[in-house]
Amino acid sequence: MSGNYEILKSHVTFGGKTVFCEHQSSSTKTKMKFSAFLPKEIAEIEHAIVWLSGLTCNEENFITKAGAQRYLKDTNTMIICPDTSPRGLGIEGEDDSYDFGSGAGFYVNATEGDYRTNYQMYDYISKDLVSLLKNDFGVKKISIMGHSMGGHGALVLGLREEGTFESISAFSPIVNPVSCPWGQKAFKGYLGDDKDKWKEYDACELIGKGLKTKHEILVDQGLGDEFLEKELLTNNLKNVCESEGQSLRLFFREGYDHSYYFISSFIGDHIKFHLEKLGSDS
Amino acid sequence: MSGNYEILKSHVTFGGKTVFCEHQSSSTKTKMKFSAFLPKEIAEIEHAIVWLSGLTCNEENFITKAGAQRYLKDTNTMIICPDTSPRGLGIEGEDDSYDFGSGAGFYVNATEGDYRTNYQMYDYISKDLVSLLKNDFGVKKISIMGHSMGGHGALVLGLREEGTFESISAFSPIVNPVSCPWGQKAFKGYLGDDKDKWKEYDACELIGKGLKTKHEILVDQGLGDEFLEKELLTNNLKNVCESEGQSLRLFFREGYDHSYYFISSFIGDHIKFHLEKLGSDS
Repeated sequence: MSGNYEILKSHVTFGGKTVFCEHQSSSTKTKMKFSAFLPKEIAEIEHAIVWLSGLTCNEENFITKAGAQRYLKDTNTMIICPDTSPRGLGIEGEDDSYDFGSGAGFYVNATEGDYRTNYQMYDYISKDLVSLLKNDFGVKKISIMGHSMGGHGALVLGLREEGTFESISAFSPIVNPVSCPWGQKAFKGYLGDDKDKWKEYDACELIGKGLKTKHEILVDQGLGDEFLEKELLTNNLKNVCESEGQSLRLFFREGYDHSYYFISSFIGDHIKFHLEKLGSDS
Repeated sequence: MSGNYEILKSHVTFGGKTVFCEHQSSSTKTKMKFSAFLPKEIAEIEHAIVWLSGLTCNEENFITKAGAQRYLKDTNTMIICPDTSPRGLGIEGEDDSYDFGSGAGFYVNATEGDYRTNYQMYDYISKDLVSLLKNDFGVKKISIMGHSMGGHGALVLGLREEGTFESISAFSPIVNPVSCPWGQKAFKGYLGDDKDKWKEYDACELIGKGLKTKHEILVDQGLGDEFLEKELLTNNLKNVCESEGQSLRLFFREGYDHSYYFISSFIGDHIKFHLEKLGSDS
């Protein structure tokens, strides 16, 4: 146990440490796992980037596959990658589909059925994980990014918690979940039939309502992404940012798909973007 | 089908392509899978690095986790990562242990029992994969590297097929398999009781017998590696290289373990080493 978290595994990486940890969440009322890369000793860490993963992922995918450590190794900024839902609650149907329940928390506070007690992923990230970063890692400033469902999470959390998160970026985000099948299924299941509640967790709706973040938002989207037209709806974000005056640095990338091969190709750019906004000293 | 191989999956990565493929091997008499990263179109590819993986791995581990693509993206050199054994033959016990049979071919030509028909991994790499590289990818020069069991494979293949492989490097290699439990179990199972046959597949024995490679051999070994003392025996390689005059650039790395976090931290150095030896034009 190190402070309020337990280190389950630790691997020296690029002169720092990749760690897999567990801590108690008061929001989900469960233990939650996360991975992190600490380029330096905790006493020297100043800032953090939160990475939110997509459907089916847990705390391992990004830290194993994205190659992010390389771009942080000489900095004072850590990255932290939480799991995508509570696990093992025994709720009926929890593990039955890839896009709802386990691995698919959608970064909302559920209000419905058996999910409302523990599926409080919005609070888990914005409160518990942020507290952990500040209290146990001594982090001063935090940025947020993610992929697909996690890109949605990064946009929504970053916009709504503008005082908490310095800058926002996303790969292949679900930008308008109220208008796509993944979002509609999840929001109906977690939030019920009242679509006004859904809009609180929809980046396009939030920006349309006037929410902004002080820096430009960075988004990379592959044009070979099989989910682009039906689920991701990237142009809806482009349009609402234009009409509302939210600065957006959006790249459509020829040929790239929805995979970690895409993320690994551009993660260096995203990390550089956040390091600049955080004022990281290298 | 592209020439003599079939592309099963392709992902644009760093402006090139990460591909997963299958081809027929006349050595193993099975289909064999491999992954590869092609930084450019095949017509522009000049050289190749062969990566041999360790126990339990298949063609996916390295290409997903090592972050190698980044270091090859601006070159004319591809990397190819074959599976570590034939698969699905239905041999009794083939899938029962992590260190023998499936995922554990040890890069030898088996002579024993049910394994001798298909477990011809030495020939698969030195003949079939090399032919594929030359004929289907137009490769001129080839280097070889690997990890653990694959480090053993890279050393043995590189030393014995000195005309085929330009340069050799390894992470955490099994350098002296005749003297460690992993090697003894595998060699007894694949090669029988005649220990003279084992020595043909042992890097320390081969160098002790006078085999050399024209360039220095590059080896990285973590000092936090749980297998160092019992299975890897790195100092045996150091000693025999010194006594036989084989140039060896050996790094013991404080704290690093046997994982892909170690490999990812130094793969850039290994790729740079091979690119220099291959005379890659960038």
